[in-house]
Amino acid sequence: MEKLIIAAAICGAEVTKEQNPAVPYTIEEIAREAKSAYDQGASVIHLHVREDDGSPTQGSKRFQEAVDAIYKVCPDVIIQPSTGGAVGMTDLERLDSTNIVPTPEFATLDCGTVNFGGDEIFINTDNTIMNFARIMQEKGIKPELECFDKGMIDIALKVDKKGLLDHPLHFDFVLGVQMSATARDLAFCVDSIPPGSTWTGCGIGRYEFDIAAISIVMGGHVRVGFEDNLFLEKGVLAKSNGELVEKVVKIAKILGRPIATPDEAREILSIKKR
Amino acid sequence: MEKLIIAAAICGAEVTKEQNPAVPYTIEEIAREAKSAYDQGASVIHLHVREDDGSPTQGSKRFQEAVDAIYKVCPDVIIQPSTGGAVGMTDLERLDSTNIVPTPEFATLDCGTVNFGGDEIFINTDNTIMNFARIMQEKGIKPELECFDKGMIDIALKVDKKGLLDHPLHFDFVLGVQMSATARDLAFCVDSIPPGSTWTGCGIGRYEFDIAAISIVMGGHVRVGFEDNLFLEKGVLAKSNGELVEKVVKIAKILGRPIATPDEAREILSIKKR
Amino acid sequence: MEKLIIAAAICGAEVTKEQNPAVPYTIEEIAREAKSAYDQGASVIHLHVREDDGSPTQGSKRFQEAVDAIYKVCPDVIIQPSTGGAVGMTDLERLDSTNIVPTPEFATLDCGTVNFGGDEIFINTDNTIMNFARIMQEKGIKPELECFDKGMIDIALKVDKKGLLDHPLHFDFVLGVQMSATARDLAFCVDSIPPGSTWTGCGIGRYEFDIAAISIVMGGHVRVGFEDNLFLEKGVLAKSNGELVEKVVKIAKILGRPIATPDEAREILSIKKR
Amino acid sequence: MEKLIIAAAICGAEVTKEQNPAVPYTIEEIAREAKSAYDQGASVIHLHVREDDGSPTQGSKRFQEAVDAIYKVCPDVIIQPSTGGAVGMTDLERLDSTNIVPTPEFATLDCGTVNFGGDEIFINTDNTIMNFARIMQEKGIKPELECFDKGMIDIALKVDKKGLLDHPLHFDFVLGVQMSATARDLAFCVDSIPPGSTWTGCGIGRYEFDIAAISIVMGGHVRVGFEDNLFLEKGVLAKSNGELVEKVVKIAKILGRPIATPDEAREILSIKKR
Repeated sequence: MEKLIIAAAICGAEVTKEQNPAVPYTIEEIAREAKSAYDQGASVIHLHVREDDGSPTQGSKRFQEAVDAIYKVCPDVIIQPSTGGAVGMTDLERLDSTNIVPTPEFATLDCGTVNFGGDEIFINTDNTIMNFARIMQEKGIKPELECFDKGMIDIALKVDKKGLLDHPLHFDFVLGVQMSATARDLAFCVDSIPPGSTWTGCGIGRYEFDIAAISIVMGGHVRVGFEDNLFLEKGVLAKSNGELVEKVVKIAKILGRPIATPDEAREILSIKKR
Repeated sequence: MEKLIIAAAICGAEVTKEQNPAVPYTIEEIAREAKSAYDQGASVIHLHVREDDGSPTQGSKRFQEAVDAIYKVCPDVIIQPSTGGAVGMTDLERLDSTNIVPTPEFATLDCGTVNFGGDEIFINTDNTIMNFARIMQEKGIKPELECFDKGMIDIALKVDKKGLLDHPLHFDFVLGVQMSATARDLAFCVDSIPPGSTWTGCGIGRYEFDIAAISIVMGGHVRVGFEDNLFLEKGVLAKSNGELVEKVVKIAKILGRPIATPDEAREILSIKKR
Repeated sequence: MEKLIIAAAICGAEVTKEQNPAVPYTIEEIAREAKSAYDQGASVIHLHVREDDGSPTQGSKRFQEAVDAIYKVCPDVIIQPSTGGAVGMTDLERLDSTNIVPTPEFATLDCGTVNFGGDEIFINTDNTIMNFARIMQEKGIKPELECFDKGMIDIALKVDKKGLLDHPLHFDFVLGVQMSATARDLAFCVDSIPPGSTWTGCGIGRYEFDIAAISIVMGGHVRVGFEDNLFLEKGVLAKSNGELVEKVVKIAKILGRPIATPDEAREILSIKKR
Repeated sequence: MEKLIIAAAICGAEVTKEQNPAVPYTIEEIAREAKSAYDQGASVIHLHVREDDGSPTQGSKRFQEAVDAIYKVCPDVIIQPSTGGAVGMTDLERLDSTNIVPTPEFATLDCGTVNFGGDEIFINTDNTIMNFARIMQEKGIKPELECFDKGMIDIALKVDKKGLLDHPLHFDFVLGVQMSATARDLAFCVDSIPPGSTWTGCGIGRYEFDIAAISIVMGGHVRVGFEDNLFLEKGVLAKSNGELVEKVVKIAKILGRPIATPDEAREILSIKKR
């Protein structure tokens, strides 16, 4: 079976040091968390950044600093800036994360609007999605098509029909926010994407390792990290993103799935190294 | 097999006379369209109303006039006011449609936020959904849980866990807006609801009769009407909602499924007549 | 949407004139039933034959007579001999139906062992299936991969892996014998076949038209006929296979799906005309 | 989440000491393997027995000796005799395994006919299945409904409709023989059983731990053992059934699912202790 790509979502925009003191805010902390994940086997760093006070930013200056610091300690890792940003940001603000040098190889592209609980909504209109796709295509950035619900796959496929996505496609199924995080949901999503596509499973909160295990068995890839889950197991905070990655590696090992290096991940994902 | 409930969404908030001259705006037109659907076999009228110029309103005064006019020509029909309203309305505005006499037996409850294409979003935060559920429960209005995507079922089930929905639940799967309108999507949704629930399939645009046919076979119920589709067949505008209902009745007849009267629909849906 | 191929299974091996007097036994009756189906829109005749007393035979002599008689009245139709035969026949006996002139364009290939109710089993070991596939491949006969259960698709795919099937594959999902005849079963089967494959849905007994309707909507093809079902509707025996085909044509018409001629069916199925 | 029942299929009828020297034939070896599994966490021993030369038997005398020997070293374990036996046995021979003292609490009931590869078929006609169900019901033996394909669930449900099965039902999905061993297959099977049923996932050969992991996540139970798989990992023979059970326990632990004792298993399965 294909080697397993592990992506570490080390920071996020919403989790805080109050919830888990290891959540990184500063550039040094971000580099530290990236390295902890990379050392354990992560080949992709999914990246949000923060100001030193923890407030989320999509500013290219801060992203540049973070990326430079990460490359120093993980020279061959794939860095995947978020273009989701935080609730309330404009499209232009969100895309600023990709205005760095070198241009990112990989970035997320959220494929629909999602309820985040309470009064919160993460808005991505069809027009936003198409604009993001067009810009990434022009810049040669491989999009990770983030789908929180089945219909977001269908939106992505409409965008694809307009020629705004280069094949093969790569999907990320984020389960446990809107669509529930179960094997049947994941299996249904996987059955819904074009042949030849690759995909990553991502379970939020207590579903993180359940979805990881199923994804490993199904031949998908895995995303874990503080953005999605702060606990190593029930009641036990993870001390680092590395601990979360280490746990995925253990599951993969027991199930006989080898781990991809960053260059192997590039080949699996058809990403050209800058 | 259980008798088939046909719901007619006779008006909607967005379709216009320019698109199909039979779209009703005035109270007389709304009553005419309700009667055309009822005469052909619709037992439920899903109701939006308009001002005489066609602009959508959720105002209780206009709803009362429309409901009174419909009851005159379809005395036993089930009237189901929309609480979706039109894009941009506040929650209170949307709920005003239920402030009529008698209190509606049935009303829609949209269970998530949906992309409507282009820049348009139909917003229903988790808090909105819970508030609507609570108010309907207090007023004794049976909610039709409108789900445009699989994850909206999961949101509805979270609302149910809070005790805000009375059982048995009734779902409406609206396919072809966000989630695609296929047999596999519909089958997956149906597998996702609690045992004992009832459901309606609703295909938008050219999927209207495809989803109707599958729903008839699967033991679900059917919604058609100008709100969802203006055409009787490719290139042929429907002359009335009654024509759309008549076509569903034909499909049901050929497939051996009898049609429910309004009182039979009440029994199937566990709705108490006012 | 692709045109609809209607296959008529006009005779079968087990249904009798006692059950429906229109079941054909003699060569004249078989030609009559083939013509009735063809005239209504069937492009494929799925063929079992009988002795004049109704007992099933796979003998090539009887098949030759039947095929010659059918071609006289339906000169361009696709004739698809069964290689299933009747319970208890040997593999060689079953394959004798293909020893005719011209060699058949198309024939069924049963992909597993099925319980037929009571003490009856329809046996197809893996070795039988592989032998049948090999012989059809050598003779240039396109196999219709008959699957009565999901795992029979998996057996077919194992046979395919051995190089014994030419692509594109064509499947026939026979539902209501072992696997139940529902939209979710059919959708799951369709999701289980290689991209580029074509397929036919076939519902046994009272499920015949339900499965036909779903198959029409899903873009599959349809098989009906006395072999599978003797009734036009509940309690009403069909007077001919043509009546059953006519009913499918009506459903296809109301759902907007045009009917394929035999030559269009050949193109859709990648069958070369002899 | 409900505690995990681990069943160990310690012996089987077909695997041999030539394939793995730890396969048990003698009563002493069977007791040793049962104990190794029990000590690691198995609460159910699925039991075939052999003559000392390894040939399979369903004879009650041999079963009685094996059961007595197992109870000596695992006093509270649930012993589940197979009624599948070996290919070629008659129904009466197969059922003889249940003619022991005390009457078994639990036994398998195969729900259809399966291709075992090559020329081999494992035959269970509908009549056989109904007879086995009736006899188990009379004797108060809880049946484990073994399904190797989706349609076998449908056969079981037909048997259930005749009143021959006491609720709640318990299913065992044996994947990788006929139906493929994937998450989507397992999820589809689980969606196909009545609410309130329990189930076990069982992957054959190299799928053993994949199916175990998915079953653990999905809330099902797990069966492993020499009958299904002889290897601890690729190329490494398991030294005992205990090693296979130990590996399942590790997976369950990392995924946060606690292990059921025999008495907890009885409660989950609604089995009354003799």
